[in-house]
Amino acid sequence: MKLEFDTDRELDIIAIGRACIDLNAVEYNRPMEETMTFKKYVGGSPANIAIGTSKLGLKAGFIGKLADDQHGRFIEQYMTGVGVDTSHMVVDKEGHKTGLTFTEIKSPEECSILMYRDEVADLYLDASEVSEEYIKKAKILLVSGTALAKSPSREAVLKAVQLAKKNDVQVFFELDYRGYTWASPEETSIYYTLVAQNADVVIGTRDEFDVMENIENGNNDETVNALFQHSPKLIVIKHGVEGSYAYAKSGDVFRGNAYLTKVLKTFGAGDSYASAFLYALLNGKDIETALKYGSASAAIVVSKHSSSEAMPTVKEIEQLIAEREAVTNQ
Amino acid sequence: MKLEFDTDRELDIIAIGRACIDLNAVEYNRPMEETMTFKKYVGGSPANIAIGTSKLGLKAGFIGKLADDQHGRFIEQYMTGVGVDTSHMVVDKEGHKTGLTFTEIKSPEECSILMYRDEVADLYLDASEVSEEYIKKAKILLVSGTALAKSPSREAVLKAVQLAKKNDVQVFFELDYRGYTWASPEETSIYYTLVAQNADVVIGTRDEFDVMENIENGNNDETVNALFQHSPKLIVIKHGVEGSYAYAKSGDVFRGNAYLTKVLKTFGAGDSYASAFLYALLNGKDIETALKYGSASAAIVVSKHSSSEAMPTVKEIEQLIAEREAVTNQ
Amino acid sequence: MKLEFDTDRELDIIAIGRACIDLNAVEYNRPMEETMTFKKYVGGSPANIAIGTSKLGLKAGFIGKLADDQHGRFIEQYMTGVGVDTSHMVVDKEGHKTGLTFTEIKSPEECSILMYRDEVADLYLDASEVSEEYIKKAKILLVSGTALAKSPSREAVLKAVQLAKKNDVQVFFELDYRGYTWASPEETSIYYTLVAQNADVVIGTRDEFDVMENIENGNNDETVNALFQHSPKLIVIKHGVEGSYAYAKSGDVFRGNAYLTKVLKTFGAGDSYASAFLYALLNGKDIETALKYGSASAAIVVSKHSSSEAMPTVKEIEQLIAEREAVTNQ
Amino acid sequence: MKLEFDTDRELDIIAIGRACIDLNAVEYNRPMEETMTFKKYVGGSPANIAIGTSKLGLKAGFIGKLADDQHGRFIEQYMTGVGVDTSHMVVDKEGHKTGLTFTEIKSPEECSILMYRDEVADLYLDASEVSEEYIKKAKILLVSGTALAKSPSREAVLKAVQLAKKNDVQVFFELDYRGYTWASPEETSIYYTLVAQNADVVIGTRDEFDVMENIENGNNDETVNALFQHSPKLIVIKHGVEGSYAYAKSGDVFRGNAYLTKVLKTFGAGDSYASAFLYALLNGKDIETALKYGSASAAIVVSKHSSSEAMPTVKEIEQLIAEREAVTNQ
Repeated sequence: MKLEFDTDRELDIIAIGRACIDLNAVEYNRPMEETMTFKKYVGGSPANIAIGTSKLGLKAGFIGKLADDQHGRFIEQYMTGVGVDTSHMVVDKEGHKTGLTFTEIKSPEECSILMYRDEVADLYLDASEVSEEYIKKAKILLVSGTALAKSPSREAVLKAVQLAKKNDVQVFFELDYRGYTWASPEETSIYYTLVAQNADVVIGTRDEFDVMENIENGNNDETVNALFQHSPKLIVIKHGVEGSYAYAKSGDVFRGNAYLTKVLKTFGAGDSYASAFLYALLNGKDIETALKYGSASAAIVVSKHSSSEAMPTVKEIEQLIAEREAVTNQ
Repeated sequence: MKLEFDTDRELDIIAIGRACIDLNAVEYNRPMEETMTFKKYVGGSPANIAIGTSKLGLKAGFIGKLADDQHGRFIEQYMTGVGVDTSHMVVDKEGHKTGLTFTEIKSPEECSILMYRDEVADLYLDASEVSEEYIKKAKILLVSGTALAKSPSREAVLKAVQLAKKNDVQVFFELDYRGYTWASPEETSIYYTLVAQNADVVIGTRDEFDVMENIENGNNDETVNALFQHSPKLIVIKHGVEGSYAYAKSGDVFRGNAYLTKVLKTFGAGDSYASAFLYALLNGKDIETALKYGSASAAIVVSKHSSSEAMPTVKEIEQLIAEREAVTNQ
Repeated sequence: MKLEFDTDRELDIIAIGRACIDLNAVEYNRPMEETMTFKKYVGGSPANIAIGTSKLGLKAGFIGKLADDQHGRFIEQYMTGVGVDTSHMVVDKEGHKTGLTFTEIKSPEECSILMYRDEVADLYLDASEVSEEYIKKAKILLVSGTALAKSPSREAVLKAVQLAKKNDVQVFFELDYRGYTWASPEETSIYYTLVAQNADVVIGTRDEFDVMENIENGNNDETVNALFQHSPKLIVIKHGVEGSYAYAKSGDVFRGNAYLTKVLKTFGAGDSYASAFLYALLNGKDIETALKYGSASAAIVVSKHSSSEAMPTVKEIEQLIAEREAVTNQ
Repeated sequence: MKLEFDTDRELDIIAIGRACIDLNAVEYNRPMEETMTFKKYVGGSPANIAIGTSKLGLKAGFIGKLADDQHGRFIEQYMTGVGVDTSHMVVDKEGHKTGLTFTEIKSPEECSILMYRDEVADLYLDASEVSEEYIKKAKILLVSGTALAKSPSREAVLKAVQLAKKNDVQVFFELDYRGYTWASPEETSIYYTLVAQNADVVIGTRDEFDVMENIENGNNDETVNALFQHSPKLIVIKHGVEGSYAYAKSGDVFRGNAYLTKVLKTFGAGDSYASAFLYALLNGKDIETALKYGSASAAIVVSKHSSSEAMPTVKEIEQLIAEREAVTNQ
């Protein structure tokens, strides 16, 4: 099974949401208190996906708001450098700052982050800064859940979704849940449900779907049945090392295995997964193959230091898939 | 043409939103600076509709939040007194106040209001205070647009709409636009569009539909065509003294005339209209007849001092209709 | 003992702080839930004192901020009407509202108020709106404690005190404590202490001095000894029906008795007391006599319906004193 | 001329205010956009002074609030490690973050900083967390101006000053102006004036005294004459490379020269100056000698990469003074 896209669009994908700075521990395998040096990368789920898809050769654009400072300028320069269309990234004029994520890598299994998300520029994206002309140039609008966490960014995203649907742009909703910023679990659930019901494709971990439903230990079948009453036609639920499932409205279910790898840290897995999955779908691969691309891309990124710079090429992804299939088929 | 309702529900209608205090000028036909005495009434569009429908014999409930003070207690006592089920009106415990509306009646044509809406209790209704068990008892959930103006009331209403749809409760959206509290016209437009697309019936003045579309001088045909792509099956657009139009998804259009009357003030017209319109629909009247009930009820209220206490009985409404039809048919 | 004032100043007193609206129960001796009509008066402690002293023939000015609406205009018109110089009352341009006080009179002993103080215009008085040229025209700057409850009004008052001291304007601090708006008892204590230490004269009830010291059941001697380490030269502590004490830095203590009267409500007693006390001091009366003027003025106001309109004339005050002295001397 | 201190106190100095993280450019002499790695140090003026004086052998304590995260714990561990008494550093329980300062060193003359000060833990120090028992253990309370920028830290500092004066603890006010956080220049001026008038010693650059007076190009004589009407007995005004002036209430004026040095960056100069100046005064040096200690300490820090770790020892300071005096006396 394959998804169909309107080939007559200038951009493959427009991502909307945050573009931030990651400050990754240079000295790792220790608590952050003992890390004395940090290396700077562009970060933030939708920025990573724009960068990841752009590196894979897709035409990616971005809608977001940047701080008017050195960090904001670095992000804009970096994203332009890898080929992302940054013409709709606006610069904040009210003194808001770039979001920061300090990473702590105690061990491959014990990773945590320390986020600076108070009054960050990306959450001040305003609905008036979202352009219908721009959105209708894309095959896909990729919405990151965290952009719904606060006004006015929340309204900017809701408007983008309304415009996408009006103009037959497919809405991909990457749940990307970050507890920070949300007022309550109930608030998250309400907006996640609202956007998921209006999306064409919904992607997230099982934990994130639980957040959407405001329940614990949710059930995939119940989740997809409820959403298939509305717009979604494909729902991908990821279960970590146990792999992922893609549910189609038709009733088909596809399973994707995780590729084992030497893990340095777990950050960035979801974004690299989404990038390669999108790449595969847009290149006419069937869903089963797209799941492999996602898994392979994730496996590569978790073995490296950054989330954005480590985004693999098509060749690297396909090579990993080929190697693993060879092993499996022996 | 008639609307169908599930007869097997305990309540005819649950209204959600604000219940406030009106302070009406005792000495009128002058600027408010010269008014020295004010009379107290329950006010707020959804409270007026709950009161109005209850006086007409419907079983009405209310979901809202009241200040923990004398004004809050007065509202609860008054609404209970006219038969509204107030079991789901919660009392604010964080010191928020009751919304106030001082009315200024310079002349029947020059009415204005002075609203106190900062930090009011009704806007602090929380999603956790909206019960699925309660909502599914009703035939109709009546949503007032002003309750969408601010969090957490906004999320409480969005949740109520999600629960209503899940439980086949018909959603009536009374646009009820008040400029106060909203952050921007664009924000209003986004949430009005979102709820209108999910409603079964949408009611408002032409000006209010313009607010929903964030345009000037909008066109009824374009408005209803856009909404009929989504859930609505009936849309009522009011044009003041020129009467109102009811558009059905089927393509039928019904016109309702305004009944001329001796106007004291213009406040309360919309709420009394909605109350009688709802009453008629729920009693199996066809849409044309329901429009007459609405117009007659509005005509009665604008000739009196209050919005809530002045809500007419069925007999008064039917008597006015009969009188006017007699004149028309001569 | 008498206080000395610079006779070469254009104004006797400038009060700074809030000018609001009182909505007094027309039907009283009942809970407010049962009061259906309210009468409108100018209210707020410093406004009442400006009005009260103006009615007594002093030249009074006012520094404050008014809402740009019907209530704000009413206040400005009323205060100008009774002779207060309102040239330094500025009009808010950001949509803030006039503070409101609904009064509940269950019985002469059971009075309570319901205040609307969220986002009120008076608390938005900005330091940039306080003029040194104006302040130095006055003999006395009267500071009301409530104006310290929140920024930017807090800073406007602190600036006014700094300017008064720089220009030898005597600072009278009327504690006027209202629990509403303050973040914590500790915060109140810090700013009350700070302004009291910089004032020439401090006036308050024993309860209000307890608030200043953030203690319970404080002791007058300890209170005045601590303050006399700083600027104050006269401290008046009021004990309700038991009368009041005036402590001079010299060590002298003066006692003033309360005049019994037929009480309608307790509101306004403090403001009328302060007005007449100020009047007497400025007219060269000794402190003992000034205490009598204060008590007589308070006795008159508590027997009437309003706080501002009921402010007595000199003749009424002196007549009451004469009557009571006649009785006492029998 | 020497200052006298109560020798019977357990601690030499308690500093109050912020303890934050500096992230210093590892690759410098370039714009920050091109810096990819940052080194972590403890920062913030009063923390630097506590660290600096502690390294010089004084007994230093600190009152402040730390984030409940890795950065907060690093600060606490580092300060304890260099001998600062951190028993009154409280841990924030409301999710506030550690303040951050990214430094940009384009050239020794072109240094700038990028501060993260929104919702930082240090500004949430509460007055209830300031202990009279602790403050009265110290000879000196060192107040940093930035801690006055916002409530509730502002009130915590005002309380600390009130307690210090009540207990004869000398108040040293280091103006330490940072434009960030303050609502307006007027607001800064009001609180700077208020604390300066209550301090024993005031230290700042000429620019910072201009901020205090809310003027441009202020005059030292006018500045000190105004302050000497109040509590201050010593005022130090720094003029960068032109050296500094110490004005005594007695009328004496002392001049201190700056020591030229190879400058890496300008950060940290003021804090190292204050640390050594305090050390010298507390060790019975006269004011002229204390000015030399300040200048020598500043010269050492600006030649090194950090502000806190670079704080010199007494030996280093005295050696630099000796070397320079030798040159001067040739």
